[in-house]
Amino acid sequence: MGMRAGQSNSQDGSIRIIPLPGLPLFAAGDDLGASIADALARAELPLADGDVVVVAQKIVSKAEGRAVRLEDVEIGEPARQLAAETGKAPALAQLILAESEAIMRAKPGLVIARHRLGHVAANAGIDASNVAHEDGETVLLWPLDPDASAARLRQQLQGRFGVEIAVVISDSLGRAWRMGTAGTAIGIAGLAALIDRRGEADLFGRVLQATLVARADELAAAASLVIGEAAEGTPVAIIRGATYIRAGAPGIGPMLRPRREDLFT
Amino acid sequence: MGMRAGQSNSQDGSIRIIPLPGLPLFAAGDDLGASIADALARAELPLADGDVVVVAQKIVSKAEGRAVRLEDVEIGEPARQLAAETGKAPALAQLILAESEAIMRAKPGLVIARHRLGHVAANAGIDASNVAHEDGETVLLWPLDPDASAARLRQQLQGRFGVEIAVVISDSLGRAWRMGTAGTAIGIAGLAALIDRRGEADLFGRVLQATLVARADELAAAASLVIGEAAEGTPVAIIRGATYIRAGAPGIGPMLRPRREDLFT
Repeated sequence: MGMRAGQSNSQDGSIRIIPLPGLPLFAAGDDLGASIADALARAELPLADGDVVVVAQKIVSKAEGRAVRLEDVEIGEPARQLAAETGKAPALAQLILAESEAIMRAKPGLVIARHRLGHVAANAGIDASNVAHEDGETVLLWPLDPDASAARLRQQLQGRFGVEIAVVISDSLGRAWRMGTAGTAIGIAGLAALIDRRGEADLFGRVLQATLVARADELAAAASLVIGEAAEGTPVAIIRGATYIRAGAPGIGPMLRPRREDLFT
Repeated sequence: MGMRAGQSNSQDGSIRIIPLPGLPLFAAGDDLGASIADALARAELPLADGDVVVVAQKIVSKAEGRAVRLEDVEIGEPARQLAAETGKAPALAQLILAESEAIMRAKPGLVIARHRLGHVAANAGIDASNVAHEDGETVLLWPLDPDASAARLRQQLQGRFGVEIAVVISDSLGRAWRMGTAGTAIGIAGLAALIDRRGEADLFGRVLQATLVARADELAAAASLVIGEAAEGTPVAIIRGATYIRAGAPGIGPMLRPRREDLFT
């Protein structure tokens, strides 16, 4: 812990973001780590020390069996009220409530929730696209413990390639005052979520102000430049050469603003 | 407009983020575009069609003479009140008010403002680090019109290298519910802020949900992986191979959530 990682192989200090080709579609029970390792080997992309492997939440959730058929959901009265208020399907409203610690805002067409893991996300992160629906309408919940999912993938990939890496599980999240979604980290392993520059001096010897850098989110956003393009459907990217703090723990928690410091809920 | 840009030179579809070495320190009146072009030439990094040049707001503001000496600021009563409430220097409070459309939250040590350009930012984006201070305490305001600054840089760089590119002016901004700052676009030229995927079908023929992608912010965040590292102080990055929508107008405006849709102020 505390070491800077991610040496660039390039002489110019540049960073590469490499989409991983050749992944299959995933279903519950699939060994995602083995599939990613196989695809890396087939693509002749052996992982290097300091690489960051960014994995779309969607395939982690699918492999972990987090797809839910809406017709299997038992709907309670609070969910019926939320559905009436927002126009969402009652079964989806039930799942949003089950996944949430609190509903922060609800209006027709929109639910902003604080997910039980602490992230603020539309529909508590529940996604209804890119899920097979031969068996009726199906939606996808976040992994139960994305940090643990990231840690398992990291162990598998490190074992396979014999190097130390970091893993980021990403989703596209909205922002309070800006339109559109940006790639955001929801689970991490092998890196610190934040880089704390407090106390470092700037070029003129003055102490830096904006000193807490959301590095895990910046990595997720960078990976989004190749992940999540619908046509290509590439759910994994390798970031090579980025600077981050190597850390085994404590996952994404430090990225979440403590409730007592939340000025906008 | 409407065309996808950013062909990767690499065969694997990867993206490169290249820090630009050899830039001088900037002061008011410097020709920033010429300096960047010269540095690109010296580094043997001629711009390629579709490149995105990401420039830290700090050097744009310096070159445009947006540094202000606190002792030169005339302080009004509202600023004295804001200073008393927050513990900020009265002159800084005055500048924050002058740069803001509204103060959204203020408490000891913290002012969150809606900048006159519409962005929500701590201290209305005013930065007190990395500004020379031989002549007394100096702070740096955002450019008067960052989209126009980006357009000027784009014209200069396109003229020099004979290719079509995009320019993003970035700053590190905080987020409502997440700790740390992430690279964020405050002015753009040559690309659309957002990619609208509404109506595109996913792999299973279902219409995509999270369909508005904040591409300009993702590019700014990606560039932050090489920009703003205090020790190195690299204020410009080239992103090569990224997908975006080429567009001459309308700048960063569409990235800003309309006030009437703001649920959290």
